[in-house]
Amino acid sequence: MKDVAARAGVGLKTVSRVVNGEPGVTAETESRVRSAIDALGFRRNDSARILRKGRTASIGLVLEDLADPFYSPLSRAVEDRARANASLLFTGSSAEVPEREQELVLALCARRVDGLVIIPAGDDHRYLEPELAAGVAVVFVDRPAGHIDADTVLTDNAGGSRDAVAHLIAHGHRRIGFIGDQVGIHTADERVRGYRQAMEAAGLPIAAGWVSMGPTTPERVRVEMARMLGGSEPVTAFFMGNNRVTVTAVRVLADCPRPAALIGFDDFELADLLRPGVTVVAQDPIRLGRTAADLLFRRLDGADEPPRRVELPARLITRGSGEIAPTVV
Amino acid sequence: MKDVAARAGVGLKTVSRVVNGEPGVTAETESRVRSAIDALGFRRNDSARILRKGRTASIGLVLEDLADPFYSPLSRAVEDRARANASLLFTGSSAEVPEREQELVLALCARRVDGLVIIPAGDDHRYLEPELAAGVAVVFVDRPAGHIDADTVLTDNAGGSRDAVAHLIAHGHRRIGFIGDQVGIHTADERVRGYRQAMEAAGLPIAAGWVSMGPTTPERVRVEMARMLGGSEPVTAFFMGNNRVTVTAVRVLADCPRPAALIGFDDFELADLLRPGVTVVAQDPIRLGRTAADLLFRRLDGADEPPRRVELPARLITRGSGEIAPTVV
Repeated sequence: MKDVAARAGVGLKTVSRVVNGEPGVTAETESRVRSAIDALGFRRNDSARILRKGRTASIGLVLEDLADPFYSPLSRAVEDRARANASLLFTGSSAEVPEREQELVLALCARRVDGLVIIPAGDDHRYLEPELAAGVAVVFVDRPAGHIDADTVLTDNAGGSRDAVAHLIAHGHRRIGFIGDQVGIHTADERVRGYRQAMEAAGLPIAAGWVSMGPTTPERVRVEMARMLGGSEPVTAFFMGNNRVTVTAVRVLADCPRPAALIGFDDFELADLLRPGVTVVAQDPIRLGRTAADLLFRRLDGADEPPRRVELPARLITRGSGEIAPTVV
Repeated sequence: MKDVAARAGVGLKTVSRVVNGEPGVTAETESRVRSAIDALGFRRNDSARILRKGRTASIGLVLEDLADPFYSPLSRAVEDRARANASLLFTGSSAEVPEREQELVLALCARRVDGLVIIPAGDDHRYLEPELAAGVAVVFVDRPAGHIDADTVLTDNAGGSRDAVAHLIAHGHRRIGFIGDQVGIHTADERVRGYRQAMEAAGLPIAAGWVSMGPTTPERVRVEMARMLGGSEPVTAFFMGNNRVTVTAVRVLADCPRPAALIGFDDFELADLLRPGVTVVAQDPIRLGRTAADLLFRRLDGADEPPRRVELPARLITRGSGEIAPTVV
């Protein structure tokens, strides 16, 4: 401000009046001050501007992993809706670490987004209460919020998993392995629950070694598949808990002398062009993202109603790998 | 502030002193004011805090399309480097619209990111000059900056394309089609340049109908492939300008009675498990992202040197589809 005052040949008080839009400055003086500001290359400062305004026409999306192709169409759908509502979208990823989710969410709030779509990594979201009280709109998608009430959009993970396992059972399988993500992740827990329900409904016992939960790294999936395919009670089919596991399974089974049936949770690109085509339980990530964004903008438009919970169906898509008959019975 | 003053039983001036850390307030009074602030649920306001500080430990990434799998590993690599440097990453996508790139970049600057990694949609970046002058660090990746000098990390797109087309020629092809992204996109222009150079180096003429630039939608790619595969001078091989085009080409050729050779620019998941496996010219998106982020953090750590331009090689990976001999000569 001193530099501007010196350059414009006016006092500090006059610069302050111009910047803050206060009266008592002639048009000629104002123009001189503005020229000095421009000449000195000062930047528009939205931090200051935002302090004085209500809405910022921006929303945040916090997701789990930027590199997981499941989240690409979901992110894109949220972005399309943001654009349709003349909002910018800022995205960040938690890498499945609850503290990082919280850090990102609060950093976005501190930068004054109007609302947030969150794929939560953590299971306690009470840290959001001051933000919610201050008017930030929040919608959870893919996984529910913990210990707070908020709009939530989920897939029927247990139901989709039941359908998949019942499909394998209908094709003659009795020994079915399940490899899923880590215990404590909502979607992973729901999918193994659906697997257990379908086995139980068919009166089939589940051997201790047939269920494996943990990181979805190729190394771990390979070890677990080799273990389940060996021994005295080898599985004849796999139901895989997410697309990262399924893709590794396709690689393992391509090199496996004895064919095993395979159904994966979540569709993936080119699944239909592999031989055999890969049977999947498909979520609709575009609809998940779109529904979440629409709920968010309803809130931002002033909708004052109790939080909603929307559950979308999952859909079995048969392509060959899930219709292979058991080779050992 | 009035509410806080009333609740703490002090004057406005006292609240102001506590908030601004000014002297003249007893410890007991300060504690009463802080309790009132907490009780009333005021949020920490980073906009105000940022105004008074230099660095914000956050960087921005502006990319072209959140849903393009090529950008997933690149984004993830930038994020990994941001984390290693204790910075948060905010990402936004321009959807290939120059105005939207500018809007996003300036919105991130206004929210006081320390630096930006940009995959540009536009070709004029003079709008960034005030930000650069104010100390924001900027690195361009995948495509160069326009009309400004900045650190840039690119792949040798023309060289990789020459290698691919020379490979097809070495396998006996003389009529090779090229389908690429829109004219004006740096990578698209460089790849068609490499295609032309390789044909010219082999003394092969290029018929007017063998080069098609435009949107990479499946519909357009299907029409163009059908056209190039028909007529009196059908192509016997395709070189495809990006992974979106290649994936559609795989689908088209799977239904095509006469086999045609195929090489795609950019690798993609499961390319090796298709039959035939898909030969590609692979960029290294992880290295692109990591190199760009490292350059950015060098600048933020105070490196004062002329802008650098780093060019990474592309690598031909042969898997079968690019080694099919011509069926019509």
